[in-house]
Amino acid sequence: MDLDYIIHSLKNFEGVTRKRPIRNIVSILNDAYNVSGNTYLGFGDDASAIRIGDGKLLLLAADGIWGRLLESDPYWAGYCSVLVNVNDIAAMGGKPIGMVNVLSINSRETCYSVMEGIRDGAEKFGVPIVGGHVHPDTPYDALDVSIAGIAPEDAIITSCDARPGDRVIIGIDLDGRPHPSFPLNWDTTTHKTPEDVQAQIEIMALIAERGLVTAGKDISNPGTLGTLGMLLEASEVGARVEMESIPRNSSVDWVDWLRMYPGSGFVLTAQEERVAECMELLESVGIEASDAGEIIGERKLYLRSGDEEGVLFDLERERIMGVTEEKSWGRPDVS
Amino acid sequence: MDLDYIIHSLKNFEGVTRKRPIRNIVSILNDAYNVSGNTYLGFGDDASAIRIGDGKLLLLAADGIWGRLLESDPYWAGYCSVLVNVNDIAAMGGKPIGMVNVLSINSRETCYSVMEGIRDGAEKFGVPIVGGHVHPDTPYDALDVSIAGIAPEDAIITSCDARPGDRVIIGIDLDGRPHPSFPLNWDTTTHKTPEDVQAQIEIMALIAERGLVTAGKDISNPGTLGTLGMLLEASEVGARVEMESIPRNSSVDWVDWLRMYPGSGFVLTAQEERVAECMELLESVGIEASDAGEIIGERKLYLRSGDEEGVLFDLERERIMGVTEEKSWGRPDVS
Repeated sequence: MDLDYIIHSLKNFEGVTRKRPIRNIVSILNDAYNVSGNTYLGFGDDASAIRIGDGKLLLLAADGIWGRLLESDPYWAGYCSVLVNVNDIAAMGGKPIGMVNVLSINSRETCYSVMEGIRDGAEKFGVPIVGGHVHPDTPYDALDVSIAGIAPEDAIITSCDARPGDRVIIGIDLDGRPHPSFPLNWDTTTHKTPEDVQAQIEIMALIAERGLVTAGKDISNPGTLGTLGMLLEASEVGARVEMESIPRNSSVDWVDWLRMYPGSGFVLTAQEERVAECMELLESVGIEASDAGEIIGERKLYLRSGDEEGVLFDLERERIMGVTEEKSWGRPDVS
Repeated sequence: MDLDYIIHSLKNFEGVTRKRPIRNIVSILNDAYNVSGNTYLGFGDDASAIRIGDGKLLLLAADGIWGRLLESDPYWAGYCSVLVNVNDIAAMGGKPIGMVNVLSINSRETCYSVMEGIRDGAEKFGVPIVGGHVHPDTPYDALDVSIAGIAPEDAIITSCDARPGDRVIIGIDLDGRPHPSFPLNWDTTTHKTPEDVQAQIEIMALIAERGLVTAGKDISNPGTLGTLGMLLEASEVGARVEMESIPRNSSVDWVDWLRMYPGSGFVLTAQEERVAECMELLESVGIEASDAGEIIGERKLYLRSGDEEGVLFDLERERIMGVTEEKSWGRPDVS
């Protein structure tokens, strides 16, 4: 196993590098994040959060589906638009409530396949698609979905509260297969019942409610360690991770595995005494979980494999999203 | 005045005709509207509504910005993405809470202008833009925005409850000008203070709270009568409207005026005894309001001008959106 090769492959993985333009764009918005004074979490997390009274937060997230996914398999693109949004809410410990989409159509056939995927995703995840907007006449096909969820203000999981000394828990459902038309999608849901799939979403709300974790994110396009990198960046910390401790389906080699977008996968951080309970809950719904490392004060992500160790991200010098400073305007100071 | 010419111009107005593909697309979704059992209003209204407990509804809407608007004036496109979404929530009698966007970028310069427009719109309307998603590498520029709002379940304005005998109230802010780069946008907000603009949004929540109207919609791309046509379609009724009773800024001729997308304009229906109070509230915030006609059982929109009368939409034979049958799955039967 050549750790340098793995690190090089992950650093230059497009799922990570295409996050970089986000900061400049976000910086234009200034105080428009919080014009009402009720914003609890702005950009930089899986979902944003706004206080709506009664100790509740409204969670909002939006995701566009990669054009290449839409071209190569429009049904799967529609299905994934549900999956990625639901996971964004789950990662915050929220309950997904409903989705709306904007569909830009060039090909009518593509459009129908996309809508069938959305329908099946909504039924699988139990989250209604309640409205949207159609552009019937664009020169391209595109799909954007946004989702709303609800979470209690005192039990929300953010990306920005990992602290040195916390353990890094990685949980991934290993019961899956690479999707035939998109090999970096680790499909864990199409062959499962809605009940089993929804149990994996709901467990995160329970983990949040019990206060078991200090931070968390769902594993998405940047892969397991790219997602951890984003969490570390938001929390302004680093980590030391043991590669072989990351749950893996051994049918997939390490480089591909670490770039996978799993149907159900989370990177979490927790104080040591809560790790066991958190892992038990994840495993109770079929998410294989492991204690894969520790959070450190030095803002680097060290990856270890056997006797080798290398730096995957040096967050003092590089940035992934770079929006940490805006992350928590409306939040009370927490330490 | 040639009424036939006006009717012909409005029937073939692209703002109306491009709504037509919506039904087929929506029909694919089947029961995916209501998989959770909490959907109160699905597609077919300005915003969808989902029960979240405590007698509250979560309102969700999504709008894509026309590509040609984005090309001709990206700053204005960004600003309008806020305006149209806020008006969707206002038209339901809701309080807008927050927005997220998906931005697909080809040109970086366009992108910055769009974000500046969004920022200024958020500040003007007092609704934060809290998150979103950026596609940094699309071959086109596109902008989709979605918004969430909250409304009490017992005071929501829908499109589908107009009844024969109701009066048709049309309210439009006449203090504006055609936007220089998009002459069918009647800009009523850029020269006003945030307080004045937000008062026009809030008045709709008060009208809803007092139960003054039976149905309502914000005037959008299909123009005043195209919007009324959509409301009639959703309510399965018709109307007889007196053209000269529609509030108009006389600097704009009738055909252009009736195709305008006003910064603040609503089509409402009300029982006769509530018309005066409703109009007073609208006028208290600078929205000129008039009783312009009546709702009839025959599913046609008759337009009258002086002694002439013609049929603008025959909703028994034509459809605008055609999604009325899905509109109210989760709602209790109301009459």
